Amino acid sequence: MQHHRARSSVERTERALAAIEDAGDEGRRIFTRVYAATALQAARAADERAAAGITLGPLDGRIVSLKDLLDVAGEATTAGSLALQDAPPAPQDAAVVRRLRAGGAVLIGKTNMTEFAFSGIGINPHYGTPGNAHDATRIPGGSSSGAGVGVVRGMAEIAIGTDTGGSIRIPAALAGIAGFKPTQARVPREGALPLSTSLDTIGPLAASVADCARADAVLAGEPWEPLPKRRVAGLRIGVPRGWLLSEADPLVLAAFEDALSRLSGAGARLSDLALDAWMLAPARVQQNGTLAAAEAAHTHRELLERAPGSLDPRVLARIRPGQGIPATHYIAVLEARARLQRELDGQLQDVELLALPTVPILPPRIDELLGSDAAFMAANALVLRNPSVFNFYDLPALSLPMGRAGGLPFGLMLVARRGRDRELLALAAAIEALG
Amino acid sequence: MQHHRARSSVERTERALAAIEDAGDEGRRIFTRVYAATALQAARAADERAAAGITLGPLDGRIVSLKDLLDVAGEATTAGSLALQDAPPAPQDAAVVRRLRAGGAVLIGKTNMTEFAFSGIGINPHYGTPGNAHDATRIPGGSSSGAGVGVVRGMAEIAIGTDTGGSIRIPAALAGIAGFKPTQARVPREGALPLSTSLDTIGPLAASVADCARADAVLAGEPWEPLPKRRVAGLRIGVPRGWLLSEADPLVLAAFEDALSRLSGAGARLSDLALDAWMLAPARVQQNGTLAAAEAAHTHRELLERAPGSLDPRVLARIRPGQGIPATHYIAVLEARARLQRELDGQLQDVELLALPTVPILPPRIDELLGSDAAFMAANALVLRNPSVFNFYDLPALSLPMGRAGGLPFGLMLVARRGRDRELLALAAAIEALG
Repeated sequence: MQHHRARSSVERTERALAAIEDAGDEGRRIFTRVYAATALQAARAADERAAAGITLGPLDGRIVSLKDLLDVAGEATTAGSLALQDAPPAPQDAAVVRRLRAGGAVLIGKTNMTEFAFSGIGINPHYGTPGNAHDATRIPGGSSSGAGVGVVRGMAEIAIGTDTGGSIRIPAALAGIAGFKPTQARVPREGALPLSTSLDTIGPLAASVADCARADAVLAGEPWEPLPKRRVAGLRIGVPRGWLLSEADPLVLAAFEDALSRLSGAGARLSDLALDAWMLAPARVQQNGTLAAAEAAHTHRELLERAPGSLDPRVLARIRPGQGIPATHYIAVLEARARLQRELDGQLQDVELLALPTVPILPPRIDELLGSDAAFMAANALVLRNPSVFNFYDLPALSLPMGRAGGLPFGLMLVARRGRDRELLALAAAIEALG
Repeated sequence: MQHHRARSSVERTERALAAIEDAGDEGRRIFTRVYAATALQAARAADERAAAGITLGPLDGRIVSLKDLLDVAGEATTAGSLALQDAPPAPQDAAVVRRLRAGGAVLIGKTNMTEFAFSGIGINPHYGTPGNAHDATRIPGGSSSGAGVGVVRGMAEIAIGTDTGGSIRIPAALAGIAGFKPTQARVPREGALPLSTSLDTIGPLAASVADCARADAVLAGEPWEPLPKRRVAGLRIGVPRGWLLSEADPLVLAAFEDALSRLSGAGARLSDLALDAWMLAPARVQQNGTLAAAEAAHTHRELLERAPGSLDPRVLARIRPGQGIPATHYIAVLEARARLQRELDGQLQDVELLALPTVPILPPRIDELLGSDAAFMAANALVLRNPSVFNFYDLPALSLPMGRAGGLPFGLMLVARRGRDRELLALAAAIEALG
């Protein structure tokens, strides 16, 4: 994964820009903006620093894309929506964009996404839907759709996404790369258009866990240290068999069992955990209204008033119910969440990781979901199901490519205890090294 | 204020119990429960420790009352409500009760309060309304009504209250004693029946600032150190002239100006601060629904369903609107609050304290407010107005007795920056020493 060192940042930036350009219309479905001139400037500066023996950190000269909901000073932040194209320009860069620039990252452009980040599918009727990088007729996964596809297609080395219910992990899983959702408090969210202030997180997608760790350090504002070496032998991994393995494609289940066999073969100590009470609870306590719907309805209140018809009807259908949620219900959900978090924390004391499929199905065909709102809603619920549980519990989680299912990448989701973000990355790197 | 050392804890406890007993029906309006036997046991144990040269801390052997909403293991927590008399017994003591017991406090009983703590007046139709300790025809102030009256009448040395919009500072001001509301995070609220989880705080009422500081250390779980000595000379005090001095009784305004003159005479540097934008904002952003109403409607949802007719109609009238508040409005208020807190924090950089009247009017007559709901609501709004602003901003605040207005005590409210609780207590002690 260190082959980028063989070429200068300028050369790699030129290749990435050419990959976007060469992709034609698909490039414009993956990137909503491309910063060709400033990216090349930044790459030149990084190369000059490297020649002088100076480094700004682990992302110096690395090619990084930004999800379309991160503020860049002077630009309207469109968040995949036409309705925001004439929004006032952002007065300053988002906190993470400031950290990336200060760390020498080459910001290549902004990647397409589900409007307002409110689905796990990646369909966008306004800017187009990027095809899955392994089968363009299938969904890329979302909401950070362009982020995952762009990395696989050589348009960026690292993509910065956001994850409210799986929006980093789902597109990473479906692209066959790593995607890391941190504990919420780890990365500042100032200047990121919120979907759900209770659940939103910011993190990286990249080909390797090591690159996720490099990006994570910069996003978190921590000095860079390589990940500590960890061994798979002796690692205690819990498997939450039950609801999160239901309604799964047999090919995905087979890939999952194969991944578990490899972990077991490497000496990991697997155990089945009966966690369904907690895995089902987020859906149960939110059945009369979700935190995300209420918070999105607040964030987008003016648009809902002014121009609801301009929104993707699939997104509108998910935000509108938020307007009818009573404050007492919202408070009850927050209170239940705090209690459930304490309870699940207690259940996880004896394992280092949970392991489960990130997405339990093969990516559906785009045309099937465009043709049927019912199919869209069913697929959306299923791709979000497993990842979203861990936003509710605010546990760090990473989707790691590990094998194939039906010829497409299979993503294994690893979950660690709250705040153990670096440990999760280190353990994921050890599992990744199994090959 | 150290005269208690002249007598044993047992003697002082016997006197306090006698004061409650001698007050007859009024004693039962001040205390909803009296722990005569266990208080005497605790006092004996404290005296034996003292004889052996052992101390459990600054409250060892001190006589402390608890507001009726703090859990005591094995008892129903009634919170001034008949509807809670058959609630299941609390499984364990509230966190602060555990700390008080561990600190050797003599817990004398539970003090009466406004039902569910939801008014600043102190009227309670279920358990009766304690008369103001200086004129029993007038209101005691609430919601910690029995707390303030009990201290003045020798029934407790220190009273533990809660303050969501002034419920410690108002009864302290009207009783002519000190009342301290800390920064919210300073004192754990586990086992205290919530009124508003966003705004509730727990703190002491006592005759002296020094006793408030002793109680604060125990409530906060900090090792005891005497307050550092501070000087009034050179102290920068801001006076928020404007809305918070409006609708005030001229006698109260005169007492306030007299207090300011004494501060100025002692060398304090007073300055007028134009803060009305921030002082008015809590009412403005909550005009379509308050945090307290939404949160109380959640906490008491079952009672509102099951037995609304059993509640004080004045309390029901304040909680019921909470059922109609949309989650989007609630979220908007929390978001505005976070922004306004940052802004006001910035405005307070150049002063150590704000000073203003705790309560801008003389305490109304109880019969006048019982006779007119409109008069009740108007008086309630006015007594809560000044204190509640600083719950919204989560700033520590203390009401200090400082002179008289119309023959009744005048309370000067001192407000400090967030987290500077001990500094506020030290400065208040220096001002108290002006006499």
